[in-house]
Amino acid sequence: MGADHGVDGFVKGAVAAVSEYAAEIILVGNEEALLQSFTLNGLSMDHIEIVHTESYITMEDPALSVVREKKDSSMHMALKLLADGHGDAMVSAGNTGALLAGSTFIVRRIKGLRAAIATTLPLEKPTLLLDAGANISVTPEILVQFAMMGSIYAERFFNVELPRVGLINNGSERTKGTKLQIETYELLEKSDLNFVGNIEGRDIPFAKCEVLVADGFTGNVVLKLVEGMGSFFMGQMKELFYRNPLTKLSALAIKGNVSAMKKKFDASEYGGAPLLGLAKPVIKAHGCSKENAVKNAIRQAILYVNSGIIFEIARRSENLITSDKEQA
Amino acid sequence: MGADHGVDGFVKGAVAAVSEYAAEIILVGNEEALLQSFTLNGLSMDHIEIVHTESYITMEDPALSVVREKKDSSMHMALKLLADGHGDAMVSAGNTGALLAGSTFIVRRIKGLRAAIATTLPLEKPTLLLDAGANISVTPEILVQFAMMGSIYAERFFNVELPRVGLINNGSERTKGTKLQIETYELLEKSDLNFVGNIEGRDIPFAKCEVLVADGFTGNVVLKLVEGMGSFFMGQMKELFYRNPLTKLSALAIKGNVSAMKKKFDASEYGGAPLLGLAKPVIKAHGCSKENAVKNAIRQAILYVNSGIIFEIARRSENLITSDKEQA
Repeated sequence: MGADHGVDGFVKGAVAAVSEYAAEIILVGNEEALLQSFTLNGLSMDHIEIVHTESYITMEDPALSVVREKKDSSMHMALKLLADGHGDAMVSAGNTGALLAGSTFIVRRIKGLRAAIATTLPLEKPTLLLDAGANISVTPEILVQFAMMGSIYAERFFNVELPRVGLINNGSERTKGTKLQIETYELLEKSDLNFVGNIEGRDIPFAKCEVLVADGFTGNVVLKLVEGMGSFFMGQMKELFYRNPLTKLSALAIKGNVSAMKKKFDASEYGGAPLLGLAKPVIKAHGCSKENAVKNAIRQAILYVNSGIIFEIARRSENLITSDKEQA
Repeated sequence: MGADHGVDGFVKGAVAAVSEYAAEIILVGNEEALLQSFTLNGLSMDHIEIVHTESYITMEDPALSVVREKKDSSMHMALKLLADGHGDAMVSAGNTGALLAGSTFIVRRIKGLRAAIATTLPLEKPTLLLDAGANISVTPEILVQFAMMGSIYAERFFNVELPRVGLINNGSERTKGTKLQIETYELLEKSDLNFVGNIEGRDIPFAKCEVLVADGFTGNVVLKLVEGMGSFFMGQMKELFYRNPLTKLSALAIKGNVSAMKKKFDASEYGGAPLLGLAKPVIKAHGCSKENAVKNAIRQAILYVNSGIIFEIARRSENLITSDKEQA
């Protein structure tokens, strides 16, 4: 209900997911608005159920409102349904802070882990960036957790054995960065992950690793800057071609290639961003999600459930914790 | 001597600056190598003097080597010449850490200020980013100094009255970020600068402000990511056009426009990055500087000297310090 473009994208995306992936969907939100969208778009409600809620979390609501004043919101209700076993995964395009807070309190985390937002950067090759904004302050140990969770995700979703893990830093040398990066470097080096060292900003677009680890502040700035530079250059290209009849003609020649390029760099093709570290699958779709993005987020939720990734994260987090204790 | 492409770019850039800007140049470095470059390129040494040094700082040398083991390096010597009044400004494309350390110890800073690297991002409109990597750990008060210095620079170099100052953050709300960003937001709001609030990564390319303030870690990641995304998209465009005869033909139609675009996004067009906060002008040119970048860095050094910017920074830093005391 709190997504930027209203309910239409969700209704259409859900219907598409039912037909393409044989999904069973529970839409949680305002019944009237949802039914109206089905009617206006002439869509079937087969395999789709509606759970009505009066209120919803807006983008401006404080994160904790989802577990305090707005326990009757669609986000709270959907998380509760997931926690209570009335669904296998939850997809939301709403307020990220509230989704994190709600997931942590209602769905719960895997013991000993922080939850991170893991976003796939649409670059040369898909690169998983975590944390994309959930944890502004972290410790080296938490960044190692993120690296471990990201590796497992990349293994299963990018089909890569031993995914390469890089640490976002302001230089390639091991002594670069704040105390956080320096200590994380040492821990990652000692870990059984495929750590390839520090990754500078200029290397981020060039697929030097499958998993990029950062604190949520840095990760969020990086994610949004990659997106911003993407739309910036797409705008610049448009300008190049719309100057005169000749350039417009030449635009036709490469039109197909540009569309392919656009599709390649369209984040919505990768579905949403999972909240890794939770005890059940929660997928954050982009706030401005339309039909295709919603459908892909649902596909991703299904893959996530079937991948056994949560079980694997829990198993390997126990090893992390054990080896910490052994060292202590 | 420590620049990526050897001395040729510096010799050619110096000769060009002599003829275009009537500059007087002291080249500090290995006399034999420098003279050889003049001879091989058939260039005149009019208005150019050479000060010979045996050693130089490599990109791998520790920052403090410039004031410890390598006091006979070209970087140390050039900074010493500047400090002793044998020149008005110093340009270097060498090891950034060493240049900072050397400048701080030999040239000295303006009383009460930290020195920041101020880089002009080649985007929609020139945007000054500081700190681009000199100060990994800062306080809110130091970020306000950076904002003040950046504003004065933007006033004089971008010809903007009351330049807009933005704080790089992970969200637009004032409560976003770590303690550092939250407290800096409050101080900037109270300052007499034209503070326009937090700037998210996705807004960085779109000229929402003339001065972008960040700690040196974040600033460095942002700067290098902007550069990296630039070369990434230029590469993508090349690929678009080199697929078949038709696309190659259409590339011809927009060739002029692409060159203009390349030039617009070429950081070397803006010269180098000044180290703001020093008592004398030191300009950091890009490590891979060639003739044009060196010439532009020299032009910028001349403008810097003539702008009176150091005097103005010193004057306004006294106000900053006084108002701090008044509040205490």
